[in-house]
Amino acid sequence: MKARIYITLKTGVLDPQGKAVHHALGALGFEEAQDVRQGKYIEMEVADGTPRARVEEMCERLLANTVIENYRVELDGETALGDQGA
Amino acid sequence: MKARIYITLKTGVLDPQGKAVHHALGALGFEEAQDVRQGKYIEMEVADGTPRARVEEMCERLLANTVIENYRVELDGETALGDQGA
Repeated sequence: MKARIYITLKTGVLDPQGKAVHHALGALGFEEAQDVRQGKYIEMEVADGTPRARVEEMCERLLANTVIENYRVELDGETALGDQGA
Repeated sequence: MKARIYITLKTGVLDPQGKAVHHALGALGFEEAQDVRQGKYIEMEVADGTPRARVEEMCERLLANTVIENYRVELDGETALGDQGA
């Protein structure tokens, strides 16, 4: 079963990496890019039947720094999504 | 308008960062994690009406290293998705 985890910086947290990408896009002539935030995307193969709560625990304990980051978990076969750690 | 870009390593490309995360999860007792691949997730605010092709051009020219990485673009209000640069 596949789990997809999206980790993004919380609103208000400075994102120098995103700023650098934004600046580089502007230098290349991509003026339509107005704001860029860079985060992490983790694809994980988990044992079938792993509950969502278990994957969220992985985020809380290791994958995301919940002081400054939000995470979102998608599990194959699930449709309901929600931002966590907000 | 919001564009979401997912950048992942191509199959067969070694992912030491993912391996490290996998190992750390195992050390924390998360045995259900079987394979971990880490990629990048970019959220970008683009001018309304920006065509998908323009965002894909940003990926080709700056955001993704298409020798070793795939990218996927999602634009707000679009439903059709497709892996690009495969």
